[in-house]
Parts: sequence; structure tokens; C-alpha cells
Amino acid sequence: MSDYDDFIARVKVLSTIESIGGLLGWDQETMMPPKGGALRAESLAFLSGLAHARLVDPVMGELLAKLGDAELDEGEAANVREVRHAWEKATKLPAELVEEIARHKSLALQVWQEARAEDDFAKFQPALEKMVELQCRAAEHYGYDDNIYDAMLDNYEPGMTVAQLDPLFAGLREEIVPLVKAIGRCDQPDMSFMERGPFPEAGQREFSLRVAAAIGFDFDAGRMDTSTHPFCSGAGPRDVRFTTRYDESFPFGCLYGVMHETGHGLYEQGLLAENEGTPLGKAVSLGVHESQSRLWENLVGRSREFWEHWLPDFRETFPHVGDLDLDTIHRAVNRVHPSLIRVEADEATYNLHIMLRYEVEKALVNGEVPVGDLPQFWNSRMEKYLGITPPNDTQGVLQDIHWSMGAIGYFPTYTLGNLYAAQLWEATLRDLPDLSQQIAAGKTAPLLEWMRSHIHVHGSRWEPEELVQRASGVEPGAEAFVRYLKGKFGALYGLA
Amino acid sequence: MSDYDDFIARVKVLSTIESIGGLLGWDQETMMPPKGGALRAESLAFLSGLAHARLVDPVMGELLAKLGDAELDEGEAANVREVRHAWEKATKLPAELVEEIARHKSLALQVWQEARAEDDFAKFQPALEKMVELQCRAAEHYGYDDNIYDAMLDNYEPGMTVAQLDPLFAGLREEIVPLVKAIGRCDQPDMSFMERGPFPEAGQREFSLRVAAAIGFDFDAGRMDTSTHPFCSGAGPRDVRFTTRYDESFPFGCLYGVMHETGHGLYEQGLLAENEGTPLGKAVSLGVHESQSRLWENLVGRSREFWEHWLPDFRETFPHVGDLDLDTIHRAVNRVHPSLIRVEADEATYNLHIMLRYEVEKALVNGEVPVGDLPQFWNSRMEKYLGITPPNDTQGVLQDIHWSMGAIGYFPTYTLGNLYAAQLWEATLRDLPDLSQQIAAGKTAPLLEWMRSHIHVHGSRWEPEELVQRASGVEPGAEAFVRYLKGKFGALYGLA
Repeated sequence: MSDYDDFIARVKVLSTIESIGGLLGWDQETMMPPKGGALRAESLAFLSGLAHARLVDPVMGELLAKLGDAELDEGEAANVREVRHAWEKATKLPAELVEEIARHKSLALQVWQEARAEDDFAKFQPALEKMVELQCRAAEHYGYDDNIYDAMLDNYEPGMTVAQLDPLFAGLREEIVPLVKAIGRCDQPDMSFMERGPFPEAGQREFSLRVAAAIGFDFDAGRMDTSTHPFCSGAGPRDVRFTTRYDESFPFGCLYGVMHETGHGLYEQGLLAENEGTPLGKAVSLGVHESQSRLWENLVGRSREFWEHWLPDFRETFPHVGDLDLDTIHRAVNRVHPSLIRVEADEATYNLHIMLRYEVEKALVNGEVPVGDLPQFWNSRMEKYLGITPPNDTQGVLQDIHWSMGAIGYFPTYTLGNLYAAQLWEATLRDLPDLSQQIAAGKTAPLLEWMRSHIHVHGSRWEPEELVQRASGVEPGAEAFVRYLKGKFGALYGLA
Repeated sequence: MSDYDDFIARVKVLSTIESIGGLLGWDQETMMPPKGGALRAESLAFLSGLAHARLVDPVMGELLAKLGDAELDEGEAANVREVRHAWEKATKLPAELVEEIARHKSLALQVWQEARAEDDFAKFQPALEKMVELQCRAAEHYGYDDNIYDAMLDNYEPGMTVAQLDPLFAGLREEIVPLVKAIGRCDQPDMSFMERGPFPEAGQREFSLRVAAAIGFDFDAGRMDTSTHPFCSGAGPRDVRFTTRYDESFPFGCLYGVMHETGHGLYEQGLLAENEGTPLGKAVSLGVHESQSRLWENLVGRSREFWEHWLPDFRETFPHVGDLDLDTIHRAVNRVHPSLIRVEADEATYNLHIMLRYEVEKALVNGEVPVGDLPQFWNSRMEKYLGITPPNDTQGVLQDIHWSMGAIGYFPTYTLGNLYAAQLWEATLRDLPDLSQQIAAGKTAPLLEWMRSHIHVHGSRWEPEELVQRASGVEPGAEAFVRYLKGKFGALYGLA
């Protein structure tokens, strides 16, 4: 066996372990009975420790060293590059810390679910304190130049730093805050049809499933279930599992949640089977992943053309909306208003929710705010950025699953995803001049095909910024997103 | 760390791996999308190879050798005894064969499901041929004295042999065949209420869930789903998962399937948390497991007292049965008639289905019947033992999941379970004189408590025969079962 073949065999074992963990994680949030939690924590910790041990196995280090000098083609070199990055990270963490984090994740997740259900932040506080402490210990092991938070950002979008994000977010805020204010002074969308509810869960489910299938999700290679917080994971590209949740007074939470997770799922299902189990067969970053979910959720799903095709089905599914017309639903699903819940926020205010979390995380891990003060800190930033204050912690600081999973540094990738999505969208409009008419006719296959060939099939061949640049022809930045926001909401709200 | 503590830590890791495999297996049959099959096969093979490698690790051999001379209490000695048995088996099998079997299981299971759905035995034939070959190779590695089939029986009920089963089955057959014939000459139960169906799936599901909860299944530590073939597995005693299936023309298939699997689940949930992950916290054998499922399914669920309590609920759930009375339903659920499907067979003919499979397996693994001739062989034995011939292979040789999972030698444990159940039942009737009245009042807690204290809490402390003897006060045999059958059906059918 060549060194490269030996290397790939080991990488595929790591992928198998990761896949098993993915399935156990999915089950934990969708199927597992409550008393199964302790054993599940044990199992996930075991898998995590096993993967870590296999990755830091001295033979892997030797193979990576040898392959650094070997003649490899572009794809092989990409596999070595990605595994080397993971290996460098892993060799810096002691196995005990890896296992402790994995074990604490499972328990913190359960505590968070209870605390959220009971609106009891104090219940979650000790678990969050320990999680912050564990993540800070990990960050110290990883090392960083300027800010401990940089070491956390790098886990989710390699190379990203506070020094890059501070000005990017400040610049975006300068554009968004006046836009949101201007919109607030305009005539607001007519939402009165919403009061003709309820929108029964079964109808929401069936309608969403039809949309997910129509935009290309393969239900022979995946499934949809229900969970507290929607997500997309699963065992691999041929077994993709996403979730949604239902609110019978508000059908768009489910629909756009499903379109969002379907976007993630389409990316996964578009990875090449021939590369399965290696970085070439895996999504390259969370930011790029989010570009796919936001593309289908917002740029497609909230377009007038989407509703040209789907409004008749929607009216048939929920007959009590009566003669709801295209303009009304198009304006309704694009209503801009400061609101409490990130995952239900509109496109204009969404990134303000991210900036808030970014500020919270920076302050937390730098010890500037104790965990116990988090509800107050959260609420004061909500007031500052969005002009509203949560009535309780369930709709405030307890709303997101991320911190209970140890995902500190993750939120900024959502904004990166929005920026990438707008940039890819401009490129598809250039390459597919009749895209709008196609969407209006219910034909999204050309758009999916473009994403397949420009993004999905490449897996981790190139690093995120290079991939987006190659696909869109432009260096990643905020310009396309700002153009998109101003153009769309300017027209919808009749701004100058 | 003492040798024993080191040993137990390793045993718990094995248990964690087994638990993860249990969950993946459950998911495969209940949730997994079809295209996930190939990766699942890979994952299960990996876990199987991993568990094998950890078990045959030389350090485990050394620990077992040292612990053989150590002073251990009864529980510790039981843990060592059980792991040594597994270790002896595992060290005889090459890791490649273990992985090949695991991988083939997953694929054979998929092929079997398709073949069964399409009534196409030829489609399953190659997979079954390979499975028989793999199991025979394993049996040769294990070794045996008289018959290669002994090595397979020992996998499921340690020490069981053809030499023991041939006369036991022959003796049972001598009692059962005349009984079934005599019953055939009697007035048959009035089944006309069945024609007032259908019995909607939702009603069957809700009624069965109520029964399962009432007899003690803890749904915070388990769940019920749907699968082609009902089973009970899961991740561990605090996460027990069983399945059922629905036939809207026949509600008792679901109900008694659920009571059966609930019986398995109650045993699992009754294992002591303090022994989790070690043999002391695990069920001792398939035969004992089956005694628990058959006890709740038949001795409780098909009793007149059970229906005294549940008939009103049944009539409310399925109002179209009208004024269905206690005698009628009691006779209906105890109707004895030769039928095609083992899992739906009555208590009298059930063991004839097992004998048929026993004959088939003995013949297959001894090369006396080629796999291709199996449908004819099956059908001829059906005619001989039950006097009927299946109209197709879906209702014949393709009906059971076992062979696709490599479980050859498993079926006889079902009959052992029936024998143990009758023996335990006689003991409970002795210890709990008002048991019948309690069941008629819907109070099954004392019976469960008896099983908890006499069977469940002991896990694998004693070997199966000793456990049954200690619990029932009698050496295991067929006498109690024959007494039970003759007493019950003699009365029901008015035999002398």
C-alpha cells in the first residue's frame, strides 16, 4: 500500500466514526427518550475520544510528514491539507479535554432544553459556565495571536479573526441600521390573512415536504423530522437528516426553516460519492454551507417568483387564507421588523442578531461579562441593536442551541453565509439569464445544477474564499449582499 | 487500578460499542433512508471489528487469566465468567471474518426486505447462500463435538446441542400434534366480529401503547416505532426501543406483538443501573428473554382476566365491534389453527413453526438441502407439521428476518422461552395466590415485581438454567408448559 493509500484508509475510518457520531447526535435530538441521555453522553464521548486517538496516532503524523514531500495531484493535496489542519488542531488538545467536552456537550444540551422549556436561565448557568471554561481551555491549547476568541472562530471558519470581523460587522451595521429605520417609516405589509389561522401542523408538514422535494432534496437519501431547534445533520451524503418545528399560528417558520435546512441538505447530497469519507467529499466550511441554506431560504424562497409558482398550492393547503394574492404574500414573507428570535428574523435584521451574539461571545470568553449577567447583557444589546427587549429568557438568551453544544465562535459563519449567498446569486443571474422565469415556472433544477457544478462537487478541494471566488468570479465581501438588500427592500417598501 | 477494575473498564467500553451498534441497527430498520444502507453496513462492520479487536486484545487475555486465580465475590465472578465465554468465542474468529459477517448482515437485510416485498426468493438466494457459508466458516472456527449446528446453537443458548433438542422437540411434538388435532374437531371460536373491521392503525397504536404503559413499560426510557418485523433492541436499559406493525383487518397482530416486545423491554428496563455496562447488568440468554416476552404476550395477554379489564377500552377504541363479550374475545384470541406466519401463530401450534425452522437450519448447515431448494423443503415441512402449504414465499420461507441477520441457531430459543415462561408462571401463581384477580382488576404490578426480583435484577449472575431453577424452584423442562397448554385449551375447547 502506498503512503497515500494508507493515509486515505485511515481518513475513511475517521469519517466512519464521525458519521456514527452524526447519527447518534441526530437521534439524541429527535428520537431518544429522556432517560437515554446519560448513556448517550458516554457514547458520544467515547466516539469523540476514539476519533481523536486515531487522528493523533503517531503513524498519522508520520504519513502527513511524508506526504508533505510527495507528488500529489490537486485533489490528493487538498485531502492532505484538510487532514493536516485537523491533525494540527487535534494534537494540541489533550485526549481528556476532548472527552470532557464531548461528555459535557450531551449533558449541557439536556439542561439547556429543560431551562429553555422552563424559562429558567439559572438552571442553565452552571452548564454554560463550565462550557465557556472548557472552550477557553481548548483555545489556550490551540493558541492565538491577538484575542482568545480568534482561536474559537478558527474552528468554524479557518483563519477568521476579530480583527477582520470587527470592521466587517461595523460596516454592515452602518448600511443595515439606516435601512431598517427607513423601512420602519414606510407602509407595512398587510398581515391580516395570518389571523385567519390556525395553519394545521399536518398541512405545514405536507406543504414543506412538497417544496423540499421540488427543489431537489432526495428523500431516498434523507429524511425530515421534528426537533426543538431545526438542524441538518445525519450519517453522510446518502443519509442526510434535517428537522423542523411547527407553530400553527405562523406557517412561515416551518416553511423557511425547511427551505433553509433543505439548502444544507442539497449541499450534502451534492457531494460526490466517489470522494465519500475524504475531505474532497465533504463540505468545505460552515460559511459556505450557510450560503447554500440561505440561498434557498431567502433568495429563492422569499422571491416573488417562488410564490408565483407555489401560491396556488399554499391556498389549497390552507383554504382559509381565501383569495390571498401574490403581492400580499410576497410582502408578508419579506416583512422587516425588529423581532426576538434569530431563526425567524427577516433578512434585513438577521445580521444584527448575529452581531449581538458576536459581542456576547467576545465578552464572555474574554471574561468581560460573567455568565450570570448574560440575560441583562443580552437584553441591553437587543435594545441597542434592535430597539426591543425580550419579555423572558426563553425568547432571549436561551433561544439558541449553540452554546449548549460548545459552539462558541460559530455564529459569525451565518453572516458570512449571507454574504456568500448574495455573491453566488449575482453570478447565477449572470450565467442563467432566465433564472427568474424558471423559478416562476417551478423549475429550480438549473439553479441547483449551477450550485452542484460550482460548489457542491468540489467538496473541500479549495479553501472557502477561493471556492467562492472561483464560483462567483469576485473576491468575497459584503457588496453583493448590500446591493441585494437595498434593491429588494427598496422596491418592496417603495424607498427612493 | 486493580486488575478487576481495569477489566471492568474494558468491559464497559465493549458495552458502549455494543450499545452504539444497537442504536445503529434499530435506526437501520426504522428510520434509515434506503440509500443510507451501504454506509450503514460499513459503520456496523467497523463497530463489530472494533469490539472484536478490543475483546481479543492480549491485555484482556492476561486480565482474564489473572482474574481466574483472584478472590472474587459472586457478582464479580459472574462478570469474569461471561466475558471469558465471549473472549473464548472471539479469539477463535479471525477479525476479517467478523467484519465480513457484519458487512454481509447489513446488505443481506436489505436484500431480504426487497425479496420479501416482491415475493422473490431467487433474489434472496445468493445472500442467504453466502450467509450460510459465513456462519459455517465461523462454526468451524468455534469447533463442535457432534454436529456443526451445535456450534451455532451455542451462540444463542450456551451449551445447547442437537443431542438435547432432538428428543425435547420430539417429545413436545408427541403432546402437541394430538392436542391440535383434537382441537380441530371441536367447535371453533366465533370470529365474526373481525369482519366488522377495519381496525384503524391509529386505534391499534393507541390501544397498544396504553397496554404497554399499563403493564409497566417506561416510555421515558424507551419508545415504540414501526418496522417490517417487530423487534426489541435499543441502546441500553434506559433507552429500550421496540417496534410493531399494523394490519387493519387484524388488530391482535399488533396488540400481541406489542405485548411480546414490551415483555422483552420490561426485562431490559428491569436490569440494574448500578451494573450497567457489565454482564451483571445484562440479560442472561435469549431463552430467558423470550420467557419474559411470552409471559406477557400469552400467559397474561391471552388470559380471560386480562380481557376482563381491557375489553371495555377495546370496545371504546373500536366501537364497530359492538357488544363483543368476554367469552367471545377470550376464545377468539386463543383460536388454535394451523397458520402460515410464525409470529401470528397461536400458543399450541407455535412450537411446530420452531421445529420446522430447526429442521431447515440443521439440514442447511449440514449441506443436506441446497439453499435453492429451500422453498420446496419449507413447504413440504409445513405440510407435514401443520397440514398447510404457503401460497407464496413471502408467507413462507421469506417471512422471518433471522437468516438475513445471520442468526442461524436462534429459533430454538423461542421454544425454550415458552417452556421457561410456563414454569415461571406456575411459580408466580404459587407465590401470588390472588394474581388472577389482580390481573382482572388491571393490576399487573405484583407480577412485574416478582419478575423484577426473581429474574431481571440478577442479570447474568447465574447461567440460564440455574436462574430459572432458582426463580421457579424446579429444573427446566417441558412439563409445566404441557400442563398449561392442556389445561387452558382443554377448558376453552371443552376437551375431556
